[in-house]
Amino acid sequence: MKKLFTTLLLSGCLATGYAQQPPNIIVFLVDDMGWMDNSVPFSGTMQPLNHRFHTPNMERLAAKGVLFSNAYATPVCTPSRVSLMTGMNAAHHGVTNWTSPNRNNNTDNPDSTFAPAPWNINGLTTRKGDSAAVYATTYPELLKAAGYYTVHVGKAHWGPMGTPGSNPVNFGFLVNISGHSAGHPQSYLSEEAYGNLPGKNTVQAVPDLEEYYHTGTFLTEALTREAIKAIAYPISRKQPFYLNLAHYAVHVPLMGDPRFLKKYQDAGLDPQEAKYASMIEGMDKSLGDIMDYLEEQHIAQNTIIIFMSDNGGLSLHPPRGGEAHTQNLPLRAGKGAVYEGGIREPMIVSGPLVNTPGSVCKQPVIIEDFFPTILEMAGVKSYHTVQQTDGRSFVPLLRQPATVDDQRILVWHYPDKWIPGDGPGINYRSALRQGKWKLVYSMRDGSKELYDLSTDIGEQHNLAAKNPTKVKELAKLLSNQLRQWNAPMPILKATGTPAPMPDGQQ
Amino acid sequence: MKKLFTTLLLSGCLATGYAQQPPNIIVFLVDDMGWMDNSVPFSGTMQPLNHRFHTPNMERLAAKGVLFSNAYATPVCTPSRVSLMTGMNAAHHGVTNWTSPNRNNNTDNPDSTFAPAPWNINGLTTRKGDSAAVYATTYPELLKAAGYYTVHVGKAHWGPMGTPGSNPVNFGFLVNISGHSAGHPQSYLSEEAYGNLPGKNTVQAVPDLEEYYHTGTFLTEALTREAIKAIAYPISRKQPFYLNLAHYAVHVPLMGDPRFLKKYQDAGLDPQEAKYASMIEGMDKSLGDIMDYLEEQHIAQNTIIIFMSDNGGLSLHPPRGGEAHTQNLPLRAGKGAVYEGGIREPMIVSGPLVNTPGSVCKQPVIIEDFFPTILEMAGVKSYHTVQQTDGRSFVPLLRQPATVDDQRILVWHYPDKWIPGDGPGINYRSALRQGKWKLVYSMRDGSKELYDLSTDIGEQHNLAAKNPTKVKELAKLLSNQLRQWNAPMPILKATGTPAPMPDGQQ
Repeated sequence: MKKLFTTLLLSGCLATGYAQQPPNIIVFLVDDMGWMDNSVPFSGTMQPLNHRFHTPNMERLAAKGVLFSNAYATPVCTPSRVSLMTGMNAAHHGVTNWTSPNRNNNTDNPDSTFAPAPWNINGLTTRKGDSAAVYATTYPELLKAAGYYTVHVGKAHWGPMGTPGSNPVNFGFLVNISGHSAGHPQSYLSEEAYGNLPGKNTVQAVPDLEEYYHTGTFLTEALTREAIKAIAYPISRKQPFYLNLAHYAVHVPLMGDPRFLKKYQDAGLDPQEAKYASMIEGMDKSLGDIMDYLEEQHIAQNTIIIFMSDNGGLSLHPPRGGEAHTQNLPLRAGKGAVYEGGIREPMIVSGPLVNTPGSVCKQPVIIEDFFPTILEMAGVKSYHTVQQTDGRSFVPLLRQPATVDDQRILVWHYPDKWIPGDGPGINYRSALRQGKWKLVYSMRDGSKELYDLSTDIGEQHNLAAKNPTKVKELAKLLSNQLRQWNAPMPILKATGTPAPMPDGQQ
Repeated sequence: MKKLFTTLLLSGCLATGYAQQPPNIIVFLVDDMGWMDNSVPFSGTMQPLNHRFHTPNMERLAAKGVLFSNAYATPVCTPSRVSLMTGMNAAHHGVTNWTSPNRNNNTDNPDSTFAPAPWNINGLTTRKGDSAAVYATTYPELLKAAGYYTVHVGKAHWGPMGTPGSNPVNFGFLVNISGHSAGHPQSYLSEEAYGNLPGKNTVQAVPDLEEYYHTGTFLTEALTREAIKAIAYPISRKQPFYLNLAHYAVHVPLMGDPRFLKKYQDAGLDPQEAKYASMIEGMDKSLGDIMDYLEEQHIAQNTIIIFMSDNGGLSLHPPRGGEAHTQNLPLRAGKGAVYEGGIREPMIVSGPLVNTPGSVCKQPVIIEDFFPTILEMAGVKSYHTVQQTDGRSFVPLLRQPATVDDQRILVWHYPDKWIPGDGPGINYRSALRQGKWKLVYSMRDGSKELYDLSTDIGEQHNLAAKNPTKVKELAKLLSNQLRQWNAPMPILKATGTPAPMPDGQQ
């Protein structure tokens, strides 16, 4: 009965550089997970926080792959997610702060000195001409065109309701499960229908999971099962797939994952931290379930997993337990900050491009690097994007993790007011890293801090006064880059002009 | 750069009987649309109601295809939808009434004489062992396995929240947009976010359409655009697709489609009927948009469209305008009834299997026939189902619409209480059609009515007293069939026994 089906056969040729099966690619993206929120020694040695969290599947992944100890995202979620989709730095795509679920709604807190920067408050769009949004070509669209089956599961948060950015289908995903405009779930609990109880929903109610309502299924588990369902199809027909499994965990609201909560409560953790740790382990189980499934399907060998978080761990107390801004130690501060606690991420890459399992790569990489990397992994070599991309492929680093490039500069730009009162490294900051040096610039007071990350990962010793030449050099580098990208700057209310760049110029 | 991709090529062979491209198949299913709710002369001549409604695209489809003038579904929605998915008669699958969005919730109205029949209140499931649900293999699952790209858009209503039936993905659909447990939309209006306004949702809030919130897009239009987006992918790779475009229209709540409302108000229609007519024309535009898209993509020639409704037009006043049970004239009664107004459907089939465009087929067909028909259309000849199917393929009727089979029996079985007070043909009825004869049985009083549909389409002249032999013959046929299917019957509270079958036996 099975006959050749000529037309499909011809169209089945993938537009990739691979003569055989291109790899499957999974980006396993966690929300608000800090660098230390796991039991993997990302710092090189086990830190006290590494002993608090239990992530055996991250350990398993690290043993198979390359651990990136200097991987970065942006201080908050939407800018990272837009950088991921577009390959652009946040200062370039202009979605510098998290987007509201509502259109034309600026999420910056009010400030007495500054009026908001002209950032793209409507997020990412694929429709030319949308106001206050960055128009770009996304890599899932390119992967789909190259023959990949593309699936998004979980948090999207690329743009507000009423715009194409609210639906991952518009970014090239064939299947979208539970991705929409919201940046966090109303509830992780099936007993609360993930927020969809009649008359009790907010815009954060998680769509598409009715099957799990009132079944005792924690959100992380429901998303994992849906992801496995969705990739079963391309696996069954040996079509390569791209899966964007973007967990809502471990973003607030902190809710204990009942499968793991008691363990951390019994360990004597602060009640909020026990909830948080249970959410971490629930996320880690999801990773393990995905890895198990790939092995059962005999495709683990040809599947790349990229584990990543979108910004640093939340360090506000409340809702976190413990003293504020200690939750990412030895890193300074947390989510919202341009200090390392706000931007350094637990990143691991496994799969066929890894030469030496269990190796460590110290070369700094950043979220916009994912775009060219994933396309290179997929063998998509020639493609057109409407935007100029900024990222660099880290495929060479997978093959040679010891590679060092001390000249590359990485930039963070946060011309926004995230919380009402400025915190450590939080609100109106830019930063630049080159090699071991890091410059932190405050738009608020014009101050510049200089840190040597090779000896001071905690950014405790400001070397700016000792090394004014380096400060000037880096400030110029940063300013020139920001100007080149036409980076949005907050507006001084007194004068109506943008805040000065780190070099003191406009 | 494009090289042969051997593995996918081999797996790209479709498991169908086609040596070339199998046809694309679209079931365009309308909700609660009556036989007369259009400008197509389904009765053979234009009736007064045909002049009220404007459905130029249905006319266009009929001119290309075969009009089925004796096509049937069941009196209410879920039973029809489950028959569609399973190929089973409602008396056989046991989902005889509409399912609640909530699990284990019997939607039958309370009755002083009867306790509810043991019907499958939890709908359709693909998980063996689910209680009060029919476990079956669905044809989208078989189509998917045969190489079809399967898409569901719109109303699902196959099972309650907390069960697999709430998610069309579990029935073999690769993509599900807006299908869930609910049987109607909370709102058709983007200004009301289709029901998802914070704090105002019910379980009927329509998922997945955030992109259209507050954009003035009527629900019917949003679903159409999403359907076109979803099929663009298989079209681009020349993969055959199956699209289940199941509109929420024209179910209550009756809300004017602003694109067409004024036209009907200006025509002097009753306000409720003007809304209803505007929803009909909005649905018809959707059909036209789909047909236009297929033509633009040059695949209209190889795409089958099956136009169908799931039950008769609603004839309750309110919410409909006019006198109750006149809305399907010349047919008797409406939704909920086993009279023709409740079960006869506007059905049209176009596409490559049609020999004579614009022809009419008078042979009775019924919703469970879709299952074997669609698999035959797709060239899927050998397949296994966990259930015994009841439907017959109508593919031969497309080739020879004049075929007559006066021996086939069609069965309707509604052992439930849909509305608090019994209506014409509504609540606790079974019926059978064979050739021109129709038997209607009331479980309430044991009465049997006999109609000759060849001369009395309105079921106005009960011939039972004149033709007791025919009544007895048909009652035996119906009873035997119901017993064979183990059809659920209401329970007499007085005795605790099931109501008798039409032949007076158990």
